[in-house]
Amino acid sequence: MSVASNAPGHGFPVAEFEHRASRAQEIMATHGFDALVVTTPPNFRYFSGFDSQFWESPTRPWFIVIPAQGEPVGVVPSIGATELSNTWIKKVHSWPAPVPEDDGISLLAGVLSELQRRHGRIGMELGREHSLRMPVMDFYALQDKLSDIEIANGSPCLWEIRMVKTDGEVARIRHICEIVSDAYASVPDLVSIGDTEREACHKLRIDILQRGADAVPFLPGVSAPGGLSQIVCGPTDRVVQDGDVLFFDNGSTYDGYFSDFDRNYAVGQIPDETRRTQDAVWQATEAGIKAAVVGATTDNVHAAMAKILEDAGSRGNNVGRMGHGLGLQLTEPPSNMPGDGTVIKAGMVLTIEPGMAYAPGKMIVHEENLVVTPDGPQLLTKRAPREMLQIG
Amino acid sequence: MSVASNAPGHGFPVAEFEHRASRAQEIMATHGFDALVVTTPPNFRYFSGFDSQFWESPTRPWFIVIPAQGEPVGVVPSIGATELSNTWIKKVHSWPAPVPEDDGISLLAGVLSELQRRHGRIGMELGREHSLRMPVMDFYALQDKLSDIEIANGSPCLWEIRMVKTDGEVARIRHICEIVSDAYASVPDLVSIGDTEREACHKLRIDILQRGADAVPFLPGVSAPGGLSQIVCGPTDRVVQDGDVLFFDNGSTYDGYFSDFDRNYAVGQIPDETRRTQDAVWQATEAGIKAAVVGATTDNVHAAMAKILEDAGSRGNNVGRMGHGLGLQLTEPPSNMPGDGTVIKAGMVLTIEPGMAYAPGKMIVHEENLVVTPDGPQLLTKRAPREMLQIG
Repeated sequence: MSVASNAPGHGFPVAEFEHRASRAQEIMATHGFDALVVTTPPNFRYFSGFDSQFWESPTRPWFIVIPAQGEPVGVVPSIGATELSNTWIKKVHSWPAPVPEDDGISLLAGVLSELQRRHGRIGMELGREHSLRMPVMDFYALQDKLSDIEIANGSPCLWEIRMVKTDGEVARIRHICEIVSDAYASVPDLVSIGDTEREACHKLRIDILQRGADAVPFLPGVSAPGGLSQIVCGPTDRVVQDGDVLFFDNGSTYDGYFSDFDRNYAVGQIPDETRRTQDAVWQATEAGIKAAVVGATTDNVHAAMAKILEDAGSRGNNVGRMGHGLGLQLTEPPSNMPGDGTVIKAGMVLTIEPGMAYAPGKMIVHEENLVVTPDGPQLLTKRAPREMLQIG
Repeated sequence: MSVASNAPGHGFPVAEFEHRASRAQEIMATHGFDALVVTTPPNFRYFSGFDSQFWESPTRPWFIVIPAQGEPVGVVPSIGATELSNTWIKKVHSWPAPVPEDDGISLLAGVLSELQRRHGRIGMELGREHSLRMPVMDFYALQDKLSDIEIANGSPCLWEIRMVKTDGEVARIRHICEIVSDAYASVPDLVSIGDTEREACHKLRIDILQRGADAVPFLPGVSAPGGLSQIVCGPTDRVVQDGDVLFFDNGSTYDGYFSDFDRNYAVGQIPDETRRTQDAVWQATEAGIKAAVVGATTDNVHAAMAKILEDAGSRGNNVGRMGHGLGLQLTEPPSNMPGDGTVIKAGMVLTIEPGMAYAPGKMIVHEENLVVTPDGPQLLTKRAPREMLQIG
């Protein structure tokens, strides 16, 4: 097995976080916030560099406060205080969580009350693509304690900050995309007719790890005769059979950054209509990639793909958009869809994800990942072959 | 490698979900709710049986409504409607998410408005150990649309339902605990002095998967001379050295159910004080296990462990409690800690997790998983040896 080389390593220099914080402060000013307060693992990690799998436990809330001026402040359970102090965050307050009756709320309110006030507003993760990582009851309690400070929707501000990636972020996404590309290329050697979907995914998961991924949080595997009715559930114990399309999607991580792209395999002899659809979706992907240029909108990227799929007789698909942002989350804003209206900038990392059904319940969905540069889109994945790789 | 046999298989019969729903309806009645509405993956899966890794994407909210009478209803993005209809849930409403301006809110409000009203209250995941999986702004919009229905904190009700496990749930936790127990036993063969923490975790992760785990969402690995300053971050690129304690904690899953227990390894020659502490913590674990009986409280379980640790000269620890519930989440209520006050019932699955520092930054933490039966506690893990296993 060829293990991907040139791994960018784990962790970023302090300068990366200083850059992120100062850029956040610039953008925050245009949104009129005295501070941002983040609770979700990707935002916590983005601003602090703190890496932990402990997010899997929902018991304790964690907070980073990014003030309009000055250094970020951590307000965290004592179980994590030592390690947070080992990041670039030097102001760390902690409490012996869990304390259900006041799990960091008074402590956080105290920190926020001492902020310099200009707007009287702070932004939290209340909007699109965010679920606040704390009990709603505790959020109410925080609002009560901060009666003279407005807690507003900070999500648009946070996404404006995170949508444009730094070179270091792109290097990590590229690295995990290369690992997964190589693993996908090996699938015909790994998987056989007669394997169950579960066995197929199990082999691929281990292969991806052996090639150097840190984790494989997202690996659905679906098989069905000639096309798919859905792409988000599975694997099941269904046996992969002649005539199937075998589909994998994969979000693996390296240093916290995700890949998110899929591949389809022809199992034995697949129907001609599947082959024709495969080609249309492959061409739609080409068009989507080409359309992802600085100054275009996500609506344009969608339209470029939709035209080709419609010409090919698409009956639509159930995915609801044709790609999205990618980074510390498997899916991030923007969305390639009508009405999203995001103007594409250099440094955005996008998935290009067209799909169409050629008959009811017979869908083909492709996906690639790219970074937008001033010179045009640059693929981070190794482009899928125009014809599906063959199993059996 | 011995692969654990007697896997309970994936998925539950419909009778299991009928039992869960009718028990939920009994408990709901005592809390005065006309319905529960759940959004988080563990609760969604608990009531529906719907298994998906797509939760990794925060873009779209998903809802299951469990009414006080009658069948549960799904309100889900179209991307998941087909598969949800293949579970025992037969009433499924869907919308073409993402639709940022109204992502399922009107549809959900419509379903809730048609519920039979007795209390005028519905319960949602607003409290302890819950983060509502939808944007807070959308939750506000839902409240506005339901101006004549109170949305109250349903968390205590949901935890009362989920804290007591069925036999099928316990079988899955036992299975994953056996897999991880066997993997832990193999660590002295897998890991060598000179490996980095990252390499050690990588080998253990692949070993756990090869033994039959579905996924390994939580695998911190920490090494430090003679004891640990923290147990939630790592692995890093630190090289494992003579005199270290090497610690792993692990939450792996089988059919959605977690293990959550740790192990400590002596690397080369460890200090005598570490050995004495190891023995005290091992004995505290014994006491904790024995105390986990029907009718005792989680305070009692904590006290049984705390006494032994105090007698051994504990300087405390930064974990904040000594064990907790376990199931579809790595951590669930109750907490083994003073003031938790949960009365232990048959069917509860608990972690027993004592820890102490013998010097500043020198902590030893043990953990086992058990199910409470009418005849007493029954270990689900293969008990850690009294002395640490040796590496090198």
